[in-house]
This record gives sequence, C-alpha cells and structure tokens, in this order.
Amino acid sequence: MSSPLLNELIEALRCLPGVGAKTAQRMAFHVLERDRAGAKKLAKKLVAAVDRIGNCTRCRTFSEDRICITCANTQRDTSLLCVVETPVDQLAVEQATGYRGHYFVLLGRLSPLDGMGPKELGIDLLATRLGEGEVRELILATNPTVEGEATAHLLGQIARAAGVRATRLAHGVPLGGELEFIDRGTLAHAFGGRQNIEH
Amino acid sequence: MSSPLLNELIEALRCLPGVGAKTAQRMAFHVLERDRAGAKKLAKKLVAAVDRIGNCTRCRTFSEDRICITCANTQRDTSLLCVVETPVDQLAVEQATGYRGHYFVLLGRLSPLDGMGPKELGIDLLATRLGEGEVRELILATNPTVEGEATAHLLGQIARAAGVRATRLAHGVPLGGELEFIDRGTLAHAFGGRQNIEH
Repeated sequence: MSSPLLNELIEALRCLPGVGAKTAQRMAFHVLERDRAGAKKLAKKLVAAVDRIGNCTRCRTFSEDRICITCANTQRDTSLLCVVETPVDQLAVEQATGYRGHYFVLLGRLSPLDGMGPKELGIDLLATRLGEGEVRELILATNPTVEGEATAHLLGQIARAAGVRATRLAHGVPLGGELEFIDRGTLAHAFGGRQNIEH
Repeated sequence: MSSPLLNELIEALRCLPGVGAKTAQRMAFHVLERDRAGAKKLAKKLVAAVDRIGNCTRCRTFSEDRICITCANTQRDTSLLCVVETPVDQLAVEQATGYRGHYFVLLGRLSPLDGMGPKELGIDLLATRLGEGEVRELILATNPTVEGEATAHLLGQIARAAGVRATRLAHGVPLGGELEFIDRGTLAHAFGGRQNIEH
C-alpha cells in the first residue's frame, strides 16, 4: 500500500472478531472514503469503554459504575437470581425473555485446564449472596456444553447447601427446528422431557 | 444493557461496513473481554489515519505525504499510467499483477446524478499529466459497469487528444468460472475477443 498509516490501521482493525485481512482492508478504505467522523467517534468510544468499563461488584457484569444498572434497579425481583457465563449471555436472556429478576455473571465456566476454578468464577461472592437469604430461586443458565453442565452441577450443590431452589433451563427441540436435522442428544432430551399439552 | 458506555461503543462500531447490531455487540464484548490493548491501539490508529491521511497531489490516492510512496518511487516505469476508480482498486491491481508503472486514482466514476463530473474526478490533473509527455500508455482499469465504461470512454478521448495510446483491461471468462454459469454479456465478450493459442 502507498500509505504506512493505512497499513497500520488495517492491521489494528484485525483485533475485532471475524475480521481478516480482506475485511480489515475494506473497513479501512470505507471509513477513510466515507465516514471519517464515524471513525473518530468510534475511536473515542473505544477508549472510553476500555478505560472506564470494569465489572459490577455485585453481579460481575460489565459496568462503568461500582454497581451496575440492573443490580441498582429496585423494580426487579430480588428473589430470582439467574447465573450466566458471560455478559453477552446475560444480554441474550434479557432480550429474549421477560425475566425481571437479577443476574450473576461467572465471566467464564469451570475449566481447570484453562485455570478457571471456583475462585475465578466468583463462586464465593455467589455463595455470600445466597447466604443473605433474599434469593429463593437460582436459575442456572450456563451453556449446555460439557463445561457448562459441570458448572451448573457445582452451582446446584452450592444452592442446595444454602437451602435455595436451583432450576436449569429446559433442553429440547429449538423453535423452527426440524426433527430430522436435530442431533440425537437434544432429541432424546426433548423426548424424555415431554410435557402435557393444555386444552 | 447494563452499561451506557457499552451501548455507545456498540452503536459506534456500526460505522464499519458490514457490521450490524449483532456483529457490533459481539465485537464490543470481544474487545472488552479479551483484547483491551488491541482496542486501544485501534483507537489510536483510527485517529492517526483520519487526521493525517489525505490524497497524493500527483495521483490522488490515499497518502499521509504530499506525494505518495508509489509516485515517489523512482524505480517504477513513468511511461505507464493506470487509471482506477478508487484506492482499493489500485491495491487490487498492485496485489494481483506485476504492474510496475504509475497510477491515477479518480476517487469515483462519471455519475452526473451523484454530482461526479470530470472536475470531481480530477480529469484536468490527468490531462496535465498526459501533457507532460512522459506517459506513453494510459491503462483504463475502471470497473466494467455502465458508469465505469462511460468514464473509460471519456478518458480514451482525453488520451487521444494528448496523443497517448489508451488500453482497456480485457473482458472475458474469469479463471475458474464455468461457461454454464457465466452471464451472457461476459460470454459474448469472451467469444468475440478470442485469441490465438501459442504452441
């Protein structure tokens, strides 16, 4: 390329997920040709977010304040606590469901080989929270992967120790899925967990 | 979302081409979770590129200097001048071919409805350049679209007026293409422009 600065910008854009050499090139040329103001704004927001967003001291989700907006919201049901692996999972639950309780974000899943143990997942913080006595149901919304299930198992034990009811998201056939193409494990779960239909 | 700053970052990321709400979300969470240093660097490079990259005064491509690296390169053949629509087209030619001549970047194509006339395309600058007498072949590498062809037609007239030979990229069957799936126009061009094979 005829401009070293442009090369550096293309290289820097590759820190974004799913952005390879070709896409980074297209992005760099696009902002230079058509949206320099947008690029400036993006730079500003990147710096602000990286410098100021930390984790909520109560639920561990991303927050620029000590206590995040969700935790600080007094309209939400304090008897429900939903445990998710990451802030993006929290966002998915929040956007898809009508859930109005609180969250606890593990920022990972049990994975000893990656150095993710109970301490890294803030399990002590969660146990303290359950010990406060306000939570009546702990909803385990970790992913249905091997690590996610192991994490849910551990959390179930902690809930039991604290005398709190633990529930797990239902496994089954996804909406719009066709039985023919669904993996065996999911289909077996859906079959085993069949429910009465109401009239 | 529980963080206004995060929302603003997600919104700002959408200035990038091909980045919708969902991708922007994924990018924002990714950099916050895993690559804060990369995000800082990206912000710095965005500002540097937007503030300092202008256009080369000789060929109009992106450059942070008055004369770009390609124009300043004395190793290149000054008798060849390749006209492209955008800097990214220049990059494509540079990466795909062994071309070692110079470039002229129109920064657009003839499109009166969008306010792109000869003046906006720097045609006067190009005519001056041809008038200098060094260029012997003007390679018209505008895109094979209606506007691109119209632009090439105009440039051909200017070359003729300056007594410079004008050539156009060959149209034909793309490598790896199958005749069955190639559009009629391209196939007709390829058929009409068939060439002797050498033994």
